[in-house]
Amino acid sequence: MTTVASRFQGVIPPVCTPRTAEGAIDVPSLENLTRHLLEGGVTGLFVNGSSGEVTHMTNAERDTVLTTIAGVNAGQVPLLVGAVEQTTNRVVEEAQRMVSLGADGIVATSQYYAISNAEETGRHIRTVAASVDVPLFVYDVPVRTHFKMPTDLLLDLGREGVIAGVKDSSGDDVSFRQLLIGAKDIPNFDIFTGHEVVVDGALLGGAQGVVPGLGNVDPKGYRRLYDAAVAGDWAGAAAEQDRLADVFNIVYTPKAGRVSGNAAGLGAFKTALVLMGIIKTNVMSAPMLALDEDETAAIKVVLERTGLI
Amino acid sequence: MTTVASRFQGVIPPVCTPRTAEGAIDVPSLENLTRHLLEGGVTGLFVNGSSGEVTHMTNAERDTVLTTIAGVNAGQVPLLVGAVEQTTNRVVEEAQRMVSLGADGIVATSQYYAISNAEETGRHIRTVAASVDVPLFVYDVPVRTHFKMPTDLLLDLGREGVIAGVKDSSGDDVSFRQLLIGAKDIPNFDIFTGHEVVVDGALLGGAQGVVPGLGNVDPKGYRRLYDAAVAGDWAGAAAEQDRLADVFNIVYTPKAGRVSGNAAGLGAFKTALVLMGIIKTNVMSAPMLALDEDETAAIKVVLERTGLI
Amino acid sequence: MTTVASRFQGVIPPVCTPRTAEGAIDVPSLENLTRHLLEGGVTGLFVNGSSGEVTHMTNAERDTVLTTIAGVNAGQVPLLVGAVEQTTNRVVEEAQRMVSLGADGIVATSQYYAISNAEETGRHIRTVAASVDVPLFVYDVPVRTHFKMPTDLLLDLGREGVIAGVKDSSGDDVSFRQLLIGAKDIPNFDIFTGHEVVVDGALLGGAQGVVPGLGNVDPKGYRRLYDAAVAGDWAGAAAEQDRLADVFNIVYTPKAGRVSGNAAGLGAFKTALVLMGIIKTNVMSAPMLALDEDETAAIKVVLERTGLI
Amino acid sequence: MTTVASRFQGVIPPVCTPRTAEGAIDVPSLENLTRHLLEGGVTGLFVNGSSGEVTHMTNAERDTVLTTIAGVNAGQVPLLVGAVEQTTNRVVEEAQRMVSLGADGIVATSQYYAISNAEETGRHIRTVAASVDVPLFVYDVPVRTHFKMPTDLLLDLGREGVIAGVKDSSGDDVSFRQLLIGAKDIPNFDIFTGHEVVVDGALLGGAQGVVPGLGNVDPKGYRRLYDAAVAGDWAGAAAEQDRLADVFNIVYTPKAGRVSGNAAGLGAFKTALVLMGIIKTNVMSAPMLALDEDETAAIKVVLERTGLI
Repeated sequence: MTTVASRFQGVIPPVCTPRTAEGAIDVPSLENLTRHLLEGGVTGLFVNGSSGEVTHMTNAERDTVLTTIAGVNAGQVPLLVGAVEQTTNRVVEEAQRMVSLGADGIVATSQYYAISNAEETGRHIRTVAASVDVPLFVYDVPVRTHFKMPTDLLLDLGREGVIAGVKDSSGDDVSFRQLLIGAKDIPNFDIFTGHEVVVDGALLGGAQGVVPGLGNVDPKGYRRLYDAAVAGDWAGAAAEQDRLADVFNIVYTPKAGRVSGNAAGLGAFKTALVLMGIIKTNVMSAPMLALDEDETAAIKVVLERTGLI
Repeated sequence: MTTVASRFQGVIPPVCTPRTAEGAIDVPSLENLTRHLLEGGVTGLFVNGSSGEVTHMTNAERDTVLTTIAGVNAGQVPLLVGAVEQTTNRVVEEAQRMVSLGADGIVATSQYYAISNAEETGRHIRTVAASVDVPLFVYDVPVRTHFKMPTDLLLDLGREGVIAGVKDSSGDDVSFRQLLIGAKDIPNFDIFTGHEVVVDGALLGGAQGVVPGLGNVDPKGYRRLYDAAVAGDWAGAAAEQDRLADVFNIVYTPKAGRVSGNAAGLGAFKTALVLMGIIKTNVMSAPMLALDEDETAAIKVVLERTGLI
Repeated sequence: MTTVASRFQGVIPPVCTPRTAEGAIDVPSLENLTRHLLEGGVTGLFVNGSSGEVTHMTNAERDTVLTTIAGVNAGQVPLLVGAVEQTTNRVVEEAQRMVSLGADGIVATSQYYAISNAEETGRHIRTVAASVDVPLFVYDVPVRTHFKMPTDLLLDLGREGVIAGVKDSSGDDVSFRQLLIGAKDIPNFDIFTGHEVVVDGALLGGAQGVVPGLGNVDPKGYRRLYDAAVAGDWAGAAAEQDRLADVFNIVYTPKAGRVSGNAAGLGAFKTALVLMGIIKTNVMSAPMLALDEDETAAIKVVLERTGLI
Repeated sequence: MTTVASRFQGVIPPVCTPRTAEGAIDVPSLENLTRHLLEGGVTGLFVNGSSGEVTHMTNAERDTVLTTIAGVNAGQVPLLVGAVEQTTNRVVEEAQRMVSLGADGIVATSQYYAISNAEETGRHIRTVAASVDVPLFVYDVPVRTHFKMPTDLLLDLGREGVIAGVKDSSGDDVSFRQLLIGAKDIPNFDIFTGHEVVVDGALLGGAQGVVPGLGNVDPKGYRRLYDAAVAGDWAGAAAEQDRLADVFNIVYTPKAGRVSGNAAGLGAFKTALVLMGIIKTNVMSAPMLALDEDETAAIKVVLERTGLI
């Protein structure tokens, strides 16, 4: 980590999107979840990300989510907001709308469905950056986009001031470390890991923070981990990471094959939040199934074992 | 092929989307292209498909494309229209808007970006089908969605009357043949291949027709191929297929790595249409690059060799 | 198909490798299977291929298999023999040993485990070809090697006389058709499909023959299909192909997940051969499991329905 | 890391295999390289691994490599030896031969070329373990085998005493952390990372050591990193890791596309060793090309910058 203060750093969870039993956005639950995160010590909020089921929401729903969170937050922490769409023109439309609704920073991926390459991706990111007047972060998530952002391109975009940083969910720890090393000499270029269980190593390598889906469930744990790392207490950070890795086992409780990988992970976060009394249902966006009673019981065991309920 | 007449059969090209030098939809060129296809003997038109750069268009652009084509077509041939979006709720919105603008049938893919499974995909397709009152076709294109539609699921959806057919761009010839065999006993369930160079074999195996991107360039060739197959002249069909496979070489003319795979294939179709005097520019949707002079010259050679100019 | 006679053409099944209950090569069963194939009208035999579990055999076992088949064949049809090893030096050793034991042609893949590229693969194939004095065929099987042989490279190797042909199990029907078209002008360069259910289309497109694993079970069916195609009776060829595609359903009988994909397909062939009285057990090479009683019963249903028992 | 002493721990480089200009194993250079590693403070040697081009060697060459290294080592550090073959019976043959030549432990992968599953893989590993009387380690390298070892299976095999540990080159940092956590409660079950640039984080998470290809070039650097970690000096470990990550840039010096990924990485190690005067040539196993003069010059720059020459 650089010792220079940055507006975007620390623990920035991607906020889950609660739904009512009928499938609408559950605004009171979303307000409650936002308060839970702020009270948990998060240093930012990532709105309309994958963990928020962004691609499962209509535009109207996305707008509701951002305005709801922004209302509760009231400027306490910066809001990073996803503009997650398939191609350049659509991302630009989405990014501009999100900025108009209060985004402090925009997060965009490479194109998907389209079969792109590095050259096109560079133009894509530059066009999006030029279309808004807030910082742009690249979200590298090849498991969804099926395109790995090249490290050289990310570093070039950082050096040129096109992007303010990267949220890395690439699962590629070698290129992540090389990104961290390359980023050390670039001012105002901050790297975040999206992987819940390797945060200690990421911070040791120089990451600025973490965007943990599991942070919805245990924001205080991630804040403790981050504070230990900032204090140079690496053994303490690793111990907290091991505890959080045990909490993360909630995503493996769904019965094999019953629900999709998407519905398993995000459904586990929502189910835990229901068990903790923070949101009202674990209903998922269509066509995802909610976790069932057995799966909920298994999650309860993990939460009890790790002291969360 | 079944001998039963079906509204959707034969040659149904996915219409390219011409743009002006400034990047707007070029309505007069699109009208001209539509006339070119109708005069070429096509039996249907596929609007807002991958070859039409559907995911690169804003909603307003998609609407313009459909209303333009529908205006020229004036009911001459049925219009299949893509509702290509990431997840269920968004596809439903898109499908309903397309039907309101004149779609005679809707074409939808499995989800993408989202990491789904067969069970969710079944619910996804059923929900979309229930949301519109025109026939729904599944577009199986795993190279873009990264999900191969299971043959069993497609056959189940056909038997239950949920879907009217499949456009197969899977590149998986084994499962395609099994789909064809399974579909033989299902009434009103029609299978189309999206692969330009294997149409003779697809029709021999029982396909109802073809959705060829290359059909923008040579609709008459595909109509001849189809007519030969219907007449049982398989050697004639194969000879025409070989000629069309040579025309298809235009997509391999771009210099390696200069443009993306997307921009190479679709750009070659557009460049050929410019050379043939049917549209005005070969400009691509952002961030794709247009083919350059050298690549255009190479395409001209192929068109001359195959008698298209 | 070219009308020029070629030594390698027609129906060339990859011979299964029967094992005894104790796991040794079952020589009498292998002799019986070889007789069954020759009596079924095959025009060649492919020894030590994937369907023969070549990579599951020790060198001593591979030698036994080739000498056994060569003994029964006694020169009636040509023997194509796999030299299936990871890298150049090992393939050369294997190819030379196979030639010394009676191979009339060698079949080699690209490298595997090693992470290669087109340039290296060209050198690999040229080195293997130079090491033996019998024709070399390339076996393109990316589902196993995880490398798709580039069509341009195959055509170059054919034009230069380095290879005598290709066995295509790529599952990529577009590149297969382009290979067929490119091969038409190259003398003594013969293309075979390895996919059991698309043989009619492959022959219509110009393939010289087929290497069907299912040909172990129904050699006469594949010979009928081939003869119909040679006679220009394409409707007859397609009808026979549809019947064979139904026989092919035996490979889908194993219960989902119980055995690997390998063990399902090859185990189905062996189990059918046991039911037909041609070999004694359906034991697989370690660590593959044999199909069980339920799966055997399901295969019996298919064989009865298609008239094979 | 556990504090319990284990025979296999620390820095265990996979030894490169020098070849003469004519392509034979260069025994004197291999002896010199072995001495360089021992003097560099390595705590073990990994013989016949991927970095040793094991799959590119004939059996005779593999034997020469092991006996040469064993001769120089003379029992100073334990020898882990790869038995890298496609399937069970072949791995058993290889493992037994390696043990007869002096292996202190065997390293085996899942099957490759064969399309396997978790159940078969379990039987595969158990059979190999039962065939030798030295410890067996699993080498998880899905980029080569195209099969990711399931974490649950690895932990089960560890608990049952079938395997003594895992060398992880999966590139999957999430499952690696979960393996580390699961392994903490299993005695005599040691986890090693094979990734050169994330060793500090791996050790912080509990890994027992590292198997770094780059350790051929800079064994002392990896020993310093390991010693810092054992001493709890995590900032020091991270600084050394950053320096080693810069050395690792030698693998990116080859011109794009000129040589394969394999030849780039292993060729860079060999070229560096030539520049350092430890081996005589950077010749690669067929069909890999050696790095050229320009690439060698670029590697020299890195070595000078990082103080290695």
